[in-house]
Amino acid sequence: MRISVVGLGLIGGSMALDLKANGFASEIIGVDYNEEHCDEALSIKLVDRILSIDLALEQSEVMILATPVQHIVKLLPEVLNKVKSQVIIDVGSTKYPASECVRDHPSRGNYVATHPMAGTEFSGPTAAIKNLFRNKVAIFCDVDLSSKKAIYIANDIFDCLGMPIVKMTSKQHDLHTAYVSHISHVSSFALALTVLKKEKDAQNIFNLASGGFDSTVRLAKSSPEMWTPILAQNAKNIISVLDNYISELIQFRKAIETQDTDALNRIIGEANKIRKILKDPR
Amino acid sequence: MRISVVGLGLIGGSMALDLKANGFASEIIGVDYNEEHCDEALSIKLVDRILSIDLALEQSEVMILATPVQHIVKLLPEVLNKVKSQVIIDVGSTKYPASECVRDHPSRGNYVATHPMAGTEFSGPTAAIKNLFRNKVAIFCDVDLSSKKAIYIANDIFDCLGMPIVKMTSKQHDLHTAYVSHISHVSSFALALTVLKKEKDAQNIFNLASGGFDSTVRLAKSSPEMWTPILAQNAKNIISVLDNYISELIQFRKAIETQDTDALNRIIGEANKIRKILKDPR
Repeated sequence: MRISVVGLGLIGGSMALDLKANGFASEIIGVDYNEEHCDEALSIKLVDRILSIDLALEQSEVMILATPVQHIVKLLPEVLNKVKSQVIIDVGSTKYPASECVRDHPSRGNYVATHPMAGTEFSGPTAAIKNLFRNKVAIFCDVDLSSKKAIYIANDIFDCLGMPIVKMTSKQHDLHTAYVSHISHVSSFALALTVLKKEKDAQNIFNLASGGFDSTVRLAKSSPEMWTPILAQNAKNIISVLDNYISELIQFRKAIETQDTDALNRIIGEANKIRKILKDPR
Repeated sequence: MRISVVGLGLIGGSMALDLKANGFASEIIGVDYNEEHCDEALSIKLVDRILSIDLALEQSEVMILATPVQHIVKLLPEVLNKVKSQVIIDVGSTKYPASECVRDHPSRGNYVATHPMAGTEFSGPTAAIKNLFRNKVAIFCDVDLSSKKAIYIANDIFDCLGMPIVKMTSKQHDLHTAYVSHISHVSSFALALTVLKKEKDAQNIFNLASGGFDSTVRLAKSSPEMWTPILAQNAKNIISVLDNYISELIQFRKAIETQDTDALNRIIGEANKIRKILKDPR
């Protein structure tokens, strides 16, 4: 099957690698407005050819939209205007704006709204890695608006990537990812800013980072190109959970300030419940 | 050299493993008020014998205090009251209260205040692992109050663990660890609480955790036994950095709410500077 990937970054590039490696894709056509990324993707063999988005659509059976989310809502209607029998899959981190912008499109059936829940803090074609997705969950949204054929092919693709599929509406998706994934990024970006401002000595940060800062701040390395549009598109849900987060911190602050060890024990004990949910093997 | 370890948890246990494995310790004597931990430590061969703290002190050349920090400030003066030529090393995560409580003790020279900057989110004797400390930094505090012999032996021990040594005052230590390590734990505990309250469906948390939540929340699995006394002892420094953190979140919230993409790009771009400081190899 000939597959085109629009947006040759971490996610699109890693999908290309796996789909080519396991033989699902006979050819990967790359599309990216960034010429440097196109050259890199060709040179490290992420893609076989680079084409314009229109030619790529004409010549492939499946097109994966893997650009930052503000481009997906722009590209998706344009692509559906020109689509024939191809299946269009987007893999953006917000789902309601994309699904909504083509809800009544005559070719809506050709489109599947997905979100593979995997990533690293790196970006660009050279960040692509094999097996990024294996045993992580892929979310499929608003599946009743997609044709059976489109869902069938999307199922095959994510199966090839090693991802179990969970279905929900795009509205539910944006709520739940705000609650779990997006707030983690906000918390991590703000932590990096705080430490950078408070601790002027970079050597101290480096020396003390292995006390836990390194893992908590990992997501703060994520790029503004990807995250600014996600935060803007999912603002309402993120604000809601961010307000809760700030309240928790203020309560925590009070327990620390008054050295209320009973309250601190209770707060930390409650927080520890996350261990069971994340099914820690220890 | 015969070494006693008081507090058979992650840190004390992991030190015991390495010091025994590389031959530095001829025998490890374990001390713990928790009998179950004593039995576990014996059965997994973390320690060779279990003794009371008084007998352990009599029979060893070095005693490592690796209990939660509220016990260190209680045990340290008692141990120094009875010390002869032994070297006493504490490895707690706060340093000013410990160093201060024996500042004028006649045997102060026998004591070295240290903090090996390594750990995991697990606790108890079974959490002990080999090479936990390798290539992480050990902080030595107020070294001018320790005797040359005590510093010499402490140097040898941390050298055996593979740790480069950085010196600062105990006051500086507590400030810098609040700025980097302790705030990371507060941020992570509060994140876990927020997500547990907001997202009632544990399966959703599990499914979406690989979107970054898993690493950001790792520290929230840390135990109240260890962290409540750290937060209480270092309250003033932690409150100061926590206030900055809450301010950053409020500014971030404003940029998200107004969908101010310029501000979001700027905030995230600033946060990304942490990448260089953590000397990310990519």
